[in-house]
Amino acid sequence: MKRHSKITQIIGTLFALLITTMAGQLTHARPGADDFMKGSPPPLESRVTKANWYVGPHNRWGLQHVREITPTTEISRGEGPVSPLPTNSQPIKDIPVTNIEGKEVTIADWLVDSYTDGFLVLHKGSILTEVYMNSMTEKSYHNFFSMSKSFTGNLAGILAGRGLLDMNNVVASYVPEMKDSAYGDATVRQLIDMTIGISYSEDYDDPDSDVYRYSRGANSNPNPDGLTLYDLLPAFKKEGEHGQKFRYVTANTDALGWVIQRAANRHLAELLATEIWGKLGAERDAYVISDLNGTPFLGGGLNTILRDAARFGLMMQQGGSINGVHVVPADWIKDIQTNSFKTGYPGISYRNQWWVYPDLDAFAARGVAGQEIMIIPERELVIVKLSSWPTLNGYHKGGRAYDRRATKAIIEYVAGL
Amino acid sequence: MKRHSKITQIIGTLFALLITTMAGQLTHARPGADDFMKGSPPPLESRVTKANWYVGPHNRWGLQHVREITPTTEISRGEGPVSPLPTNSQPIKDIPVTNIEGKEVTIADWLVDSYTDGFLVLHKGSILTEVYMNSMTEKSYHNFFSMSKSFTGNLAGILAGRGLLDMNNVVASYVPEMKDSAYGDATVRQLIDMTIGISYSEDYDDPDSDVYRYSRGANSNPNPDGLTLYDLLPAFKKEGEHGQKFRYVTANTDALGWVIQRAANRHLAELLATEIWGKLGAERDAYVISDLNGTPFLGGGLNTILRDAARFGLMMQQGGSINGVHVVPADWIKDIQTNSFKTGYPGISYRNQWWVYPDLDAFAARGVAGQEIMIIPERELVIVKLSSWPTLNGYHKGGRAYDRRATKAIIEYVAGL
Repeated sequence: MKRHSKITQIIGTLFALLITTMAGQLTHARPGADDFMKGSPPPLESRVTKANWYVGPHNRWGLQHVREITPTTEISRGEGPVSPLPTNSQPIKDIPVTNIEGKEVTIADWLVDSYTDGFLVLHKGSILTEVYMNSMTEKSYHNFFSMSKSFTGNLAGILAGRGLLDMNNVVASYVPEMKDSAYGDATVRQLIDMTIGISYSEDYDDPDSDVYRYSRGANSNPNPDGLTLYDLLPAFKKEGEHGQKFRYVTANTDALGWVIQRAANRHLAELLATEIWGKLGAERDAYVISDLNGTPFLGGGLNTILRDAARFGLMMQQGGSINGVHVVPADWIKDIQTNSFKTGYPGISYRNQWWVYPDLDAFAARGVAGQEIMIIPERELVIVKLSSWPTLNGYHKGGRAYDRRATKAIIEYVAGL
Repeated sequence: MKRHSKITQIIGTLFALLITTMAGQLTHARPGADDFMKGSPPPLESRVTKANWYVGPHNRWGLQHVREITPTTEISRGEGPVSPLPTNSQPIKDIPVTNIEGKEVTIADWLVDSYTDGFLVLHKGSILTEVYMNSMTEKSYHNFFSMSKSFTGNLAGILAGRGLLDMNNVVASYVPEMKDSAYGDATVRQLIDMTIGISYSEDYDDPDSDVYRYSRGANSNPNPDGLTLYDLLPAFKKEGEHGQKFRYVTANTDALGWVIQRAANRHLAELLATEIWGKLGAERDAYVISDLNGTPFLGGGLNTILRDAARFGLMMQQGGSINGVHVVPADWIKDIQTNSFKTGYPGISYRNQWWVYPDLDAFAARGVAGQEIMIIPERELVIVKLSSWPTLNGYHKGGRAYDRRATKAIIEYVAGL
């Protein structure tokens, strides 16, 4: 008996060793949030800084800890009741999908393969599945990146609906400081639809790209020169004509934000809180990266918990209302769906700071490194995915097609419910 | 009739002009939070930055907006119920007190004179008065400055009570990295009581003082060299002997924090949350300025709402418990009250990172620019004051004596209840 228990103990030890080694290898293969910022102090190579928080592998921790990296402004949820999200659990994770190598796998595998942090599917306002990975929890905040732009588009829609913002006016009529810039003679419509003719590069693979210099002024990158968004925006030069073609430029959204502040004569943080966030019945306050003027970085600075991102999607899915509260004009949302125009990316259109997928009857907020809130009103479906891809642009060459197959598989499954 | 209304209108206009002018003068005489960070962008002279947020007049806004200035770490309130603070309103504001000029005024005047942002008096666990000024509200956070140190002292007490921390051990036995510094051969007892012999200057009026250089590493000042607390602490040199006399050194508290992290083998932010904040029944999460390693700045980085500061005081007043939850060992609090030693400041002793006022039977957490949580267990009294003095050291030459008279007047009033 004693000898037997000794052998059991040895086998147990060997097994534990094996598991530890395997875990070590897995960690080596793909760092997770827990591999960073541990220890007192953390080893230098595991330190997440203002210079590396947004790219892999440091974004595995960074995207859930933006407030620990840079100054932010709180967007209050207000005092109203939380909008309920009842649960109607469905085996979404078991839905089959073909992976990058052409192998039949499941949505559960896709979530792992695509570096998911949080994933939630809402159908008819109920949660079919809610998944947390990479140390994210229901209380964790996650960066939105460019999904923040769709919030800003909505603010414009709210003001336009009240007659405070005229989409046909030129930018300089709201913000004289931008008169001599690329933006001066552009209309608000051209700005919100990203058809500005501007000398600007949004190449995420080029560290000297304008988008990185711009990020410094946004306080989301190291900012040794003390730049602000409103220092940089008036300096962009015009190149080509406005209104000719879609051109994705992060700075446009903050130019739109400046227009919004002036049109409403209210601070952007206060507008975001009272006009959108405070009406959603969010569980938690949101927060947004803010620059040295306290200006929220609307091009990519918003952070929320997973469920609140879903509530934002649900409000859009329901034509602008949630829990009996009206937030965004219904005809503004209709305009996104019906008046979108081709971007040059196959199957993807754009309108009002929202991406539109005509063949899926869907529209979406999207951000680099795998952020998406996809809304399919006809199916009463909202799919939220928060991720931390190794690079801003993707996690694998075949990743986008794989993501599309996964989304379609979920849509088809839900159609059968 | 028409003529009469015309005259009324003119008088009204003149009156409005007068009020505006007076308001202008008042604003000029004493800027308030609303004079900063307004506009898109705010005028340069009204911009609150990492370089000016903590001193007047910019601290009028800055102390309530630390998260918008620098990176912070959340200290979760946990999931437990909020500790109730019932109201028993008393005319505290009407209590007479002699002001700096020797004039009989009231506590209401004292609160104005001493640049109050928030003020709360708790007696037998009930709120006698709760005052918000300078745009602060019940949801506003306010910087604690050195009141943060008393939180840290409590953490040490909690660990010592569990046998995880021996006050007689030397610092180097917990943190070898500090072996060759001023701290290496000091005991934890000497560290927590601020009797370290160290070459260091805490002169708030000297911008080249060590405390400012140290603040850079804490991320509470501009930090162009990318310093961290744990870069700076091992570099302080010994000067004189330990245990000889009281010497107030902010860095000591973070050295203590480092010892605590190593003794508990847990992260400081997690310790603050689970061992103190999560047990208080706080209304809101707290947050703390954190350095580039994510290390909380325990010397001066904590931020809470007014009522939660009062709950912290109430827990201490009640011998370490609040709402039925035990937080800090009762004998640790007794030790503060009974074993305090003279500091050299008249009427003020020190122990375990708490200030002790023997002649008032009180002890207190204190911070520059007018922060104080005063606890008088015998009277079941807690007085919390959050302020934004024009300088870190004071608001007027006669300020401290005036404050002392005000405190005594409140204590006497409450004794009669």
